[in-house]
Amino acid sequence: MATILKGGEVARAKKSGIMKRVDALKERGICPALCIVMVGDRKDSHAYVKGATKALTGCGIDCHLAHFPEGINQNQLLEEINAINKNPEYNGIIVMRPVPDTIRWGAIEEAISPEKDVDCITIKNLSKLFKGEGGGFYPCTAKAVVDTLDHYGIKVEGKKVVVVGRSLVVGKPAAMLLLQRNATVTICHSKTLDLGRITSEADIIVAAAGVPHLLGANSVNRESIVLDVGINVVDGKLTGDVDFDRVEPLVSMITPVPGGVGSVTTSVLMENIVTAAQRLAGEI
Amino acid sequence: MATILKGGEVARAKKSGIMKRVDALKERGICPALCIVMVGDRKDSHAYVKGATKALTGCGIDCHLAHFPEGINQNQLLEEINAINKNPEYNGIIVMRPVPDTIRWGAIEEAISPEKDVDCITIKNLSKLFKGEGGGFYPCTAKAVVDTLDHYGIKVEGKKVVVVGRSLVVGKPAAMLLLQRNATVTICHSKTLDLGRITSEADIIVAAAGVPHLLGANSVNRESIVLDVGINVVDGKLTGDVDFDRVEPLVSMITPVPGGVGSVTTSVLMENIVTAAQRLAGEI
Repeated sequence: MATILKGGEVARAKKSGIMKRVDALKERGICPALCIVMVGDRKDSHAYVKGATKALTGCGIDCHLAHFPEGINQNQLLEEINAINKNPEYNGIIVMRPVPDTIRWGAIEEAISPEKDVDCITIKNLSKLFKGEGGGFYPCTAKAVVDTLDHYGIKVEGKKVVVVGRSLVVGKPAAMLLLQRNATVTICHSKTLDLGRITSEADIIVAAAGVPHLLGANSVNRESIVLDVGINVVDGKLTGDVDFDRVEPLVSMITPVPGGVGSVTTSVLMENIVTAAQRLAGEI
Repeated sequence: MATILKGGEVARAKKSGIMKRVDALKERGICPALCIVMVGDRKDSHAYVKGATKALTGCGIDCHLAHFPEGINQNQLLEEINAINKNPEYNGIIVMRPVPDTIRWGAIEEAISPEKDVDCITIKNLSKLFKGEGGGFYPCTAKAVVDTLDHYGIKVEGKKVVVVGRSLVVGKPAAMLLLQRNATVTICHSKTLDLGRITSEADIIVAAAGVPHLLGANSVNRESIVLDVGINVVDGKLTGDVDFDRVEPLVSMITPVPGGVGSVTTSVLMENIVTAAQRLAGEI
């Protein structure tokens, strides 16, 4: 039986730290606030906004929705983003993806102020991540992986870590953050041969491929620590990249889906917003 | 006995392509040109400039030295760089490192025009590399690794590649370029445990740690393809990160030092300059 690494626990611990920082800011008359930019009316975007708003306001962070019709053109949207950049009421901006085809995503990446880029999509923050520099923001889910390991006291220095998936949102940034912490990092992906053999030789597995049940009983060893970042919907049910029922009895530690790394992501976003607020106020 | 992968051969093949492109540009009245910025009088910088100038002019590319005294201050240097950015005579800029302590390297990175950044130090080009996007420039030595593999017809897709070293100049960018080509990439470094075991299980080893003879007989297998990017001086003699004499008889292919990947680097720089010239002329 593996130790279950519960994201809820990590998030709770982080939230108490966040709330203290929010209180300190409010004493100085500063209210940390996120502006979520949404174009069109995707159901999943609305669901995200609803969830984020509830979580953020629960920690004393304001959450504003800047909602634009599907038909907004690129220039108009960039002007709106520019206004949010300049608006001192907002410390963080995130733009819901995907945007309509009429809008180039790259233009949005270029438009957002790096100081408010709490989702790490600007080249300034991405290059800091790649360089291993501080002072920027890290992508929330990738940082949630590292924070989960930290919370449970799992050291990564010198460990063999295999990251499965090379997306810019999770796989690559997680690899960079773990490399920064002196793990020996292997990045696997859809063209990797003999994936199960490679993951089974790792100390820590970060599954972020977006393929349900990609990793099974043969993908692990008895000492494996498995972080499942996959969020897939199969038959209307949330499931990870790891076949939890088969893998859990065989490994040392594992995160469930739901209730694992995904539960930590929003608290990383909140930390980023509070950090942005503190930086913009000249506190740090 | 291993096949020796000779950098000189790769460079020669690349140069013939470069010269054709230079000729085509010159027919249109455009002369590709690099401006090397040098502050102070380091012997190694002078040696580099001398070597680069000879190589570039040999291919019809102009090479100008913008040489400033050790005492130049940061603002003055940034103004000079800005003038080079604007000067249509130059298609590429590189700044010799290190610069004096009075000058912040980060300020130089920010000052150089990404369109002329043939050494890939700007955040725009670094983030393109990290994202896996084209349209930028890649660091010359990292690209030389990939080009050497290409020249010898060595496929990397699905192969296990171990990169030893995580510098921003070679290790990390080489890892990203090989990942882009669908290799399964492991990044090792000074904190990696059991390095020899990890490299010995790889199909391709890229040694870029800057530690003489870091990899020896136990670090390889009979099928290993070894690219030694190390350039170390031991007892006045150039030596790589691989103990060539012991490793060469045991592996399938290997680059020597000198005469290996290092010999390809300047031709990558030239390609970058010609590409910059073509882009600036609106040809590509």
